[in-house]
Amino acid sequence: MVAEIVSVGTELLLGQIVNTDAAHLARRLSEIGVTLYRQVTVGDNPTRLLDALTDALKRADVVITTGGLGPTADDLTKEIAAEALGIPMERNAEAERALRARFEAMGREMTPNNLRQADFARGAILLPNPNGTAQGCIVNHDGKIVINLPGPPREFIPMTDGYVIPYLSNQSGSVIRSRYLRLFGIGESDAEYRLSDLMDGVNPTIAPYCSLGEVQLRLTARAADAATADAMLDPLESRVRERVGEFIYSRTNDPHEDMAAAVAGRLTAKGLRIALAESCTGGMLASMIVSQPGASAILEEALVVYSNSAKTRLLGVPSDLIASEGAVSESVARTMAEGARDRSGADIAVATTGIAGPTGGTAEKPAGLVWLAIAGRSGTKVRKLNLRYNRNDNRYMACLNALDLLLKYDD
Amino acid sequence: MVAEIVSVGTELLLGQIVNTDAAHLARRLSEIGVTLYRQVTVGDNPTRLLDALTDALKRADVVITTGGLGPTADDLTKEIAAEALGIPMERNAEAERALRARFEAMGREMTPNNLRQADFARGAILLPNPNGTAQGCIVNHDGKIVINLPGPPREFIPMTDGYVIPYLSNQSGSVIRSRYLRLFGIGESDAEYRLSDLMDGVNPTIAPYCSLGEVQLRLTARAADAATADAMLDPLESRVRERVGEFIYSRTNDPHEDMAAAVAGRLTAKGLRIALAESCTGGMLASMIVSQPGASAILEEALVVYSNSAKTRLLGVPSDLIASEGAVSESVARTMAEGARDRSGADIAVATTGIAGPTGGTAEKPAGLVWLAIAGRSGTKVRKLNLRYNRNDNRYMACLNALDLLLKYDD
Repeated sequence: MVAEIVSVGTELLLGQIVNTDAAHLARRLSEIGVTLYRQVTVGDNPTRLLDALTDALKRADVVITTGGLGPTADDLTKEIAAEALGIPMERNAEAERALRARFEAMGREMTPNNLRQADFARGAILLPNPNGTAQGCIVNHDGKIVINLPGPPREFIPMTDGYVIPYLSNQSGSVIRSRYLRLFGIGESDAEYRLSDLMDGVNPTIAPYCSLGEVQLRLTARAADAATADAMLDPLESRVRERVGEFIYSRTNDPHEDMAAAVAGRLTAKGLRIALAESCTGGMLASMIVSQPGASAILEEALVVYSNSAKTRLLGVPSDLIASEGAVSESVARTMAEGARDRSGADIAVATTGIAGPTGGTAEKPAGLVWLAIAGRSGTKVRKLNLRYNRNDNRYMACLNALDLLLKYDD
Repeated sequence: MVAEIVSVGTELLLGQIVNTDAAHLARRLSEIGVTLYRQVTVGDNPTRLLDALTDALKRADVVITTGGLGPTADDLTKEIAAEALGIPMERNAEAERALRARFEAMGREMTPNNLRQADFARGAILLPNPNGTAQGCIVNHDGKIVINLPGPPREFIPMTDGYVIPYLSNQSGSVIRSRYLRLFGIGESDAEYRLSDLMDGVNPTIAPYCSLGEVQLRLTARAADAATADAMLDPLESRVRERVGEFIYSRTNDPHEDMAAAVAGRLTAKGLRIALAESCTGGMLASMIVSQPGASAILEEALVVYSNSAKTRLLGVPSDLIASEGAVSESVARTMAEGARDRSGADIAVATTGIAGPTGGTAEKPAGLVWLAIAGRSGTKVRKLNLRYNRNDNRYMACLNALDLLLKYDD
């Protein structure tokens, strides 16, 4: 079953709001195995909306609109959708009663315009909206399904999850299962090169997604039921692990579970507490850890020692060491980590010191040079980075590397 | 001039990421008076991408794509765009050199796939990408303009703002001038209500944009030259200031200059150094300050005192005060700020303590309760917040309020 999303609204078209509805709907559709080839956004313009719907109906079995169900004159989605299908509009008596009751309960006057919200294409299935006056609808006509949903997310999401997805799921008869492998320390193109022969599959499939410093592989299978789909994914995952297993740091069902979550999970499971000593990362590493609920169980403290005097006072880094080696040096990173561990009583401490840029670099120590150190029961380890990004991406990459040190540290 | 946006990427189509690029681009196009009637999203599929581009070229003068410029086999946007225009692809020698230099500098192996990023349609104008390997391009051919931009926002946004908008603006022959007023402490609908009669203008215009905790007003005028446009904006700005002046914390020409930049600017101008003591914000406040180049001139140190023992050991908060009042209390916030100032020798210190949530709240102290304190030469001031967002938005709102305290502190 092929679907298309048509988002309607001038505020979307002009970028005044971001189209989160389309992303939510697309994710839900992929979960139930409905194929989506195209999303379109148009403004509140009847001619261009009719064009977009007519085009979409040529390509897709299901066309889902969001927005344009309000009471104002430019809210015309239901009417234009009915026109595209060639079905007349009718007032729905029950919807009219509900609308009048709602206005009475709110003590608000009803205008003739408001009554248009009780008009639907003949034969439409109405979708309740507990959070607003705009009911949605499903029109199943002549082998095509058109679904009209309201735009505001707090009205759109419950209607999508509560009615639309169950309805379409019933029609399609297959399920999609995905799992996510997250990799650190390998570039996207290198990962794809090593996996290229596995990426031609039709079912199951592998899709790589890249964000700064990380590669995520989505493995997806479609089958009659979840257990069969999972059984198709297991051997594929084994083959991926043979090729790039050393870079994989997590496997989840949640596309948003990141490296900080993996670190928090590992530390929590081991009952370890950490301390951080951040110079160039400037609190970003602490903030990534604290973004995880329950961070208080694993984070003893973090010291943002941006000045040399703070490095000395708070961590005991000798000022003559800073003078001789420079604040950005292996020995200062070591001393920072060891000082943070000793003074905090934490099990493990991580230190960062570097030149985030764009200024502050020299020929010998250019912007992007970062030293990391980790200190714990099995000794102190260091890592040197030569980063080539902008200031905040350099800081972010230093944080990812620090998290990687925490994931790999053998405590 | 009519434009169309074609967003390319299976991860967009499947809803794994939200299409913020399209919103950003749409906003920028509207600012320079380029008309947008339609946005389309397609996956990494050559046939459907070619269809979408061919359709778009029939309707629009300018077609702008985002995504699909990466090095992997399914990144085909440039190639398909050239095909839609009927232009051959050529390897660009300078782009190849830059690519090889970049890989060498990173110490990473280059695969044959990577070299495809140096291929462009004949006659293309190349757009530099300081944040990645994917250069964008502008192809102006036979009365149509096709522009290919990378998908990751940190690559896409600088390229759009730095090259694409100036290029398209030049084509139109008139000058657009915008200035941005940033407001804190007022809701979007309240701001809109107070300014409603000013928002109907055609030239100059006011457009409100809302992000968590902040409202930004973009004032835009179009004229034959910059001086004329600026002279149109001055009286409009005066009228805005009459209505909402008390909430305005900055006026800039840069839409991305945020509250941390305003704080850094103020502290730098006054030659003041700060210390931070963060509990619930967990390094986020320090990280916002350190994101500003030159932060070392204003940040003495930041202590992420997430545990009670750290609050006592590092800031001298008496443990019996924590026991009697609770870590989230006015007196602990005060003592944290004063302790941070005294121990660091900074001019001003700010402290945050609160319950970020979702867990950890009680009936008396619910999740979202935050106490802030600021200590300096003119005494200690506190602010209490009752936030109702998710964990990280609560932390972010606490940081914005802390920055607001720094902007308003009378030193």
